Amino acid sequence: MRPRDLVDPSRAARIAQRMDDIAPFHVMEIQRRALELEAAGRRIVHMEIGQPDFPAPPPVIDAAVAALRREPMGYAPSLGLPELRAAIVRFYAERYRVEIDVGRVFITAGASGAFLVTLGALIDPGDEVLMPDPCYPCNRHFVRLFEGAARCIPVDEHSRYQLSLAELERNWSPRTRGVLLASPSNPTGTTVPPAELAAIVDWVQAKGGFVLVDEIYHELAYGERMPTAVALSDEVFIVNSFSKYFNMTGWRLGWVIAPPRYARALERLLQNLYICASVPAQHAALAAFAPASLVIFEAQRREFQRRRDFLVPALRAVGFRVPLMPEGAFYVYAGCERFGPDSHALALRLLERAGVAITPGIDFGANRPERHVRFAYTCALDDLREGVERMRAELAG
Amino acid sequence: MRPRDLVDPSRAARIAQRMDDIAPFHVMEIQRRALELEAAGRRIVHMEIGQPDFPAPPPVIDAAVAALRREPMGYAPSLGLPELRAAIVRFYAERYRVEIDVGRVFITAGASGAFLVTLGALIDPGDEVLMPDPCYPCNRHFVRLFEGAARCIPVDEHSRYQLSLAELERNWSPRTRGVLLASPSNPTGTTVPPAELAAIVDWVQAKGGFVLVDEIYHELAYGERMPTAVALSDEVFIVNSFSKYFNMTGWRLGWVIAPPRYARALERLLQNLYICASVPAQHAALAAFAPASLVIFEAQRREFQRRRDFLVPALRAVGFRVPLMPEGAFYVYAGCERFGPDSHALALRLLERAGVAITPGIDFGANRPERHVRFAYTCALDDLREGVERMRAELAG
Repeated sequence: MRPRDLVDPSRAARIAQRMDDIAPFHVMEIQRRALELEAAGRRIVHMEIGQPDFPAPPPVIDAAVAALRREPMGYAPSLGLPELRAAIVRFYAERYRVEIDVGRVFITAGASGAFLVTLGALIDPGDEVLMPDPCYPCNRHFVRLFEGAARCIPVDEHSRYQLSLAELERNWSPRTRGVLLASPSNPTGTTVPPAELAAIVDWVQAKGGFVLVDEIYHELAYGERMPTAVALSDEVFIVNSFSKYFNMTGWRLGWVIAPPRYARALERLLQNLYICASVPAQHAALAAFAPASLVIFEAQRREFQRRRDFLVPALRAVGFRVPLMPEGAFYVYAGCERFGPDSHALALRLLERAGVAITPGIDFGANRPERHVRFAYTCALDDLREGVERMRAELAG
Repeated sequence: MRPRDLVDPSRAARIAQRMDDIAPFHVMEIQRRALELEAAGRRIVHMEIGQPDFPAPPPVIDAAVAALRREPMGYAPSLGLPELRAAIVRFYAERYRVEIDVGRVFITAGASGAFLVTLGALIDPGDEVLMPDPCYPCNRHFVRLFEGAARCIPVDEHSRYQLSLAELERNWSPRTRGVLLASPSNPTGTTVPPAELAAIVDWVQAKGGFVLVDEIYHELAYGERMPTAVALSDEVFIVNSFSKYFNMTGWRLGWVIAPPRYARALERLLQNLYICASVPAQHAALAAFAPASLVIFEAQRREFQRRRDFLVPALRAVGFRVPLMPEGAFYVYAGCERFGPDSHALALRLLERAGVAITPGIDFGANRPERHVRFAYTCALDDLREGVERMRAELAG
């Protein structure tokens, strides 16, 4: 008998403690079941998925194909292809009239990679980061990954589901290192008012803390063009992505704009944790800023707005509580108290009985998740209409 | 004056402590200078770069292009495309006659991503991981990232630059969680003898520790086909990559094979840290296992062997100390004592005066790095000949 057959499983290699706190995406369970039902012949309306139903536009695909035929696709500089970093600088100059030094722009493996390197360079064990609850679940997990702690502050419609300066002042402690905001937010679609954000940035920086603003959905806001937090201060960290507005989810490409003195730390983490972001994706993304692509993206933005304008009143008519009109992203975060005490059970019921897939609140935090669900309007208006009608029939029954 | 103008820079957001221990790649400084010299008209022989000079073969490019024209490139499952995971299972079955449950195969954003999720799921603060010195520098940085400590054990030609079971026994402590080996190794090109590896796996598992084997260069060994560590035990972690043998460096794609009970933890980390590996790259990689691709890769392997067989005696003739013939990878780790006490100064001298770029030992650890340099034979034989001749002329002078 070889010694390994004598291993006592209880002594076998442990799993790290942090894994007790890093939750799976519960929506995956919903999605898995939805796919099973579809495989069995059911038609499912998908309102659970946080990815645009539009693919990357033809100029982006053409640029990728041309680059694949032309370039050896070796490693890129860890900071990103210089021409892509320059294109991002131009994008901010043209759309927002903000000048950014190209040395502050870092290309990452999706917004996920952007959070990874930014928080890796900021968080020491025991550090606290303030963030609203509900919010995108990975945010608190990235902080936990580095042995910090997310301090999730409950927000609701009275604060537009965002943190105010007053809340930050109340919750700031000697252990607080900074604050993470998202504007527009996933799952609520609300934005931080520009004046409030400016006040937050000033106050937090005076405390010696950092402000990290998730602008992944920034180009998908439906009112007047919002100013970007980049314009407020060179000291703000911005995370953005080619996934949502630019429809390049599966390519895994994003960026960080960081204060100048973090450049060396971020470069070292990019070198060591990634080497570089996927190079075919970087070549493709160059064409995302072409005028022909931006025309397509803006048309899609208007289509998302039409869907929102249909969906919110329709959900209210079914009996969901949507106290605020979301201003951006492609989500509606809705109270579902009227349909029972358990949003997870409701999501399963709607999937099994009505063939509508939605995301239970549990994926977004600990602030009464059992009373909330998230709808994504990442499917065509006709599908949304059908989904609403199916839910109406099921829930009226 | 707005409050932010009053910020005392010394109080401004700190950089995390771990960044004091996460070093940059020093070779980047060499490479940057090499590119400057080239821009000024000098011809440089590149022996510093750890990426094959061969691009991905036509079937891989064609598969990528076809997928770009066909697929919307949305998110893939976090574990990876099912057909790619199945292709990896088939590869091990056909090449190594090893059966692997597909549930143990996880697609990652390069081998970098593989180390990230594996060590994230294993390392608690204060844990020690044993590894040889010299080794690939990121390995110790990944451990440090999660607040663990790499215990780097000096190795030399007498142990074939690898850890023996005896060394593990001597260095194992109550804080030791596991061991990280690379076979073949970057930078030394040596392998762990199969019997020694089996003994190490048995002993470490009996201690309740983990064994993580970096097999990134496993397909680039030049003797008889080495068995993979996957065959030794279901409890071994294997990291592999599409970058080296498969020539897909810039695409950023790799894989982990993990013990079954880590599957849930790895899936949660993949979901939260990446969402998924780049999807165009996953579609392309499916064609890397096609017979037509494997024929190309095997021909390239023979070409690497020819280069090694030229380079090692040629370097010895110049005066570098190469006590062992490397068995794989595309590196020679050579003693340079004869040319002065400082390998970094030697690398700069060879670059500036002879136009030959190489990597100083400092990138690979703290075990007499000043006496070593690494040569990569990732350029054509004629270039290697020219590089050697230039070094001979410079160093004889």
